[in-house]
Amino acid sequence: MGHLFASRALLSRKSFIREILKVTQSPSIISFAGGLPNPKFFPVDEIKNAAVKVMETDGANTLQYTITEGLPSLREWISRRYARRGVDIKPDEILITNGAQQAVAIIGKTFLEKNDHVVMEKPGYLGAIQAFEFYETIFNQIDIGEDGIDTAELRKVLDAQDIQLAYLIPNFQNPTGNVYSEAKRRETAELLKKREILLVEDEAYYELRFEGKPLPSIREYYDTNHILLGSFSKIISPGFRVGWCCAKKPLMEKLVVAKQANDLHTSHFTQKVIAQYLADNDIDRQIQRIIGQYSRQCRCMLEMIPRYFPPEVQYTKPTGGMFVWATLPEGWSSEELFDVAIAKDVAFVPGNAFCSDASLGSSMRLNFTNSDEDKIEEGIKRLGSAIKELFSKKKKTSVIA
Amino acid sequence: MGHLFASRALLSRKSFIREILKVTQSPSIISFAGGLPNPKFFPVDEIKNAAVKVMETDGANTLQYTITEGLPSLREWISRRYARRGVDIKPDEILITNGAQQAVAIIGKTFLEKNDHVVMEKPGYLGAIQAFEFYETIFNQIDIGEDGIDTAELRKVLDAQDIQLAYLIPNFQNPTGNVYSEAKRRETAELLKKREILLVEDEAYYELRFEGKPLPSIREYYDTNHILLGSFSKIISPGFRVGWCCAKKPLMEKLVVAKQANDLHTSHFTQKVIAQYLADNDIDRQIQRIIGQYSRQCRCMLEMIPRYFPPEVQYTKPTGGMFVWATLPEGWSSEELFDVAIAKDVAFVPGNAFCSDASLGSSMRLNFTNSDEDKIEEGIKRLGSAIKELFSKKKKTSVIA
Repeated sequence: MGHLFASRALLSRKSFIREILKVTQSPSIISFAGGLPNPKFFPVDEIKNAAVKVMETDGANTLQYTITEGLPSLREWISRRYARRGVDIKPDEILITNGAQQAVAIIGKTFLEKNDHVVMEKPGYLGAIQAFEFYETIFNQIDIGEDGIDTAELRKVLDAQDIQLAYLIPNFQNPTGNVYSEAKRRETAELLKKREILLVEDEAYYELRFEGKPLPSIREYYDTNHILLGSFSKIISPGFRVGWCCAKKPLMEKLVVAKQANDLHTSHFTQKVIAQYLADNDIDRQIQRIIGQYSRQCRCMLEMIPRYFPPEVQYTKPTGGMFVWATLPEGWSSEELFDVAIAKDVAFVPGNAFCSDASLGSSMRLNFTNSDEDKIEEGIKRLGSAIKELFSKKKKTSVIA
Repeated sequence: MGHLFASRALLSRKSFIREILKVTQSPSIISFAGGLPNPKFFPVDEIKNAAVKVMETDGANTLQYTITEGLPSLREWISRRYARRGVDIKPDEILITNGAQQAVAIIGKTFLEKNDHVVMEKPGYLGAIQAFEFYETIFNQIDIGEDGIDTAELRKVLDAQDIQLAYLIPNFQNPTGNVYSEAKRRETAELLKKREILLVEDEAYYELRFEGKPLPSIREYYDTNHILLGSFSKIISPGFRVGWCCAKKPLMEKLVVAKQANDLHTSHFTQKVIAQYLADNDIDRQIQRIIGQYSRQCRCMLEMIPRYFPPEVQYTKPTGGMFVWATLPEGWSSEELFDVAIAKDVAFVPGNAFCSDASLGSSMRLNFTNSDEDKIEEGIKRLGSAIKELFSKKKKTSVIA
């Protein structure tokens, strides 16, 4: 036998975040590491009632196999929701997946050949790096600033490289929390459209807006070679694993085949329960409850950072989403900080998890959605003290050396 | 852009079975096409009660993300179930997947390079052909007879080719319903073991035994480069999409990474509901109910075939599972028969769906689990009349020609 594992499997790595989650199970640790919603806002009773109703009215059918594309009533609901914001996506342009993550994975499977070039933000979504690196792609990560991706840099990369696809998160990007301005959305669309590059636009955080008005999707300006991703994970339940992707017919046909070969279809039961929940409840009220609390938690973190961190630490000021991105002064390592922080019972994700070339070693991602305000204050205090300890230790070390 | 789709996506085809399912939605059609369980035996009330209990006792946690490997209590249950039949598989050697199909897909992703050779039965499981052909593999399908795979042919293929993995279904094989004898299991294990070839042993139909004693898994004789697949689809609900795969640590580590990049984890909710159902109900009683009825349906089909089919048609006589495999005399096409049959409101899957080289054009798969006995009688009658019509039409055609 020439090989045991496929070479793609040897390149792939376990998610550092999910490995960290194992370290941070201890109840004494305050974890800003995960990307977990606050479980206080899970609609437990409403989901229970929806499950009962589904089983009482259509139980046997719910337990049977269903079509790969996904539950028609759920796809119709998603289509209507898009229509409400002026986006025309038909139900048969929607495929239900196991969270948006599975959509990313089947996109990789459908479009990426070995050595294909992919554009992502820098820092970028770890789950997409993981999914795409299975197909032995080459990452071109482009800096994302407060108002979105650096379009001058994007243009340079597009001129220099034959890019197969771009994966972008224009709203409350993971991990920075940054939002693309309308101008940046338009410019990005123009650059990609001219070259007909496939754009995967991930709107998993779209609904988690604390202030300001929603901006149009990049799809508004470029909708042909385009796949839009969405998810119920941030507004109903991540444990359900129900998300979706939208694409026009020629792309959708291939995505359906990839999904079918993957697991036939997403759980019929979870799809039916979510559709029932959406029919019987006001999702906008649910979203308002969540963002009310998340915006308080975010504000708390943004108030505590300048209080407890040394002033040299820079950080983003999100207006939505789940994360703050903080950066130590050049030369300081967030991985070294991680060890000091864990000893003080506080955790985060070091920045190198969010790039393919270990060039974000001074940064870190801080999640504010899974900790209440008192924990956020205490956690930022511990982390500030860890940063100060790191700074002083290093100084001491250099004196001794 | 050099290509839009990856070449693996261009090779892949939609499942003919699932396309047929769309044609056969009409209530007037009697369909032997799908591989669907009889919905009469879905434990609807028990699942409802389990869902209520899970949400009432551990709701918020159930809606949160969980670990990729799968719910510990569910993996412990599966491990204990193996122990009951003398098979030693630890909970951490089990990964929960979205049905056994997802296990097949992530095995393809983890082990198969382009142009790798794969061994399967002929006819073989369509879902595995679909999953593996995404990785541009070369299929070596080996005839399966009444007592299992043709081991002489297997030896020849193994001597001639560098085989990367073998995918086999030793119990009530899909689509033939055949069972490997103990001697065949042992011989197969020896042939693979000598060459250290990865064996994927799919036991999705293991529990659906109508008569006789269970036989040891091939794993009994070769457990190192081995992955064992199982599923709740045939005994509880296929719509839930909960199955699993078992492997020793070095293989399992890579499978977990592939699963993680795919969809983070299988729905926490469905895993918890199944675990609760298993804790509160006697699964063996459920299995007895199912196999009691399925064995009556199978017997009915095996009685009706000789009554209504021309005697030249050959067919298997399963002692479990979900399918009968029938073969027209050489030269007759089951695809031509399909059109005649659909006009008479009866459907099946033509044999070529179960091989990679269109060499099973005379055969067909008949499912007996999703039709009650009266429908089986009527359906086989219609199909017999369709076969006779095909035979007579053809004769006429040849006379005219």
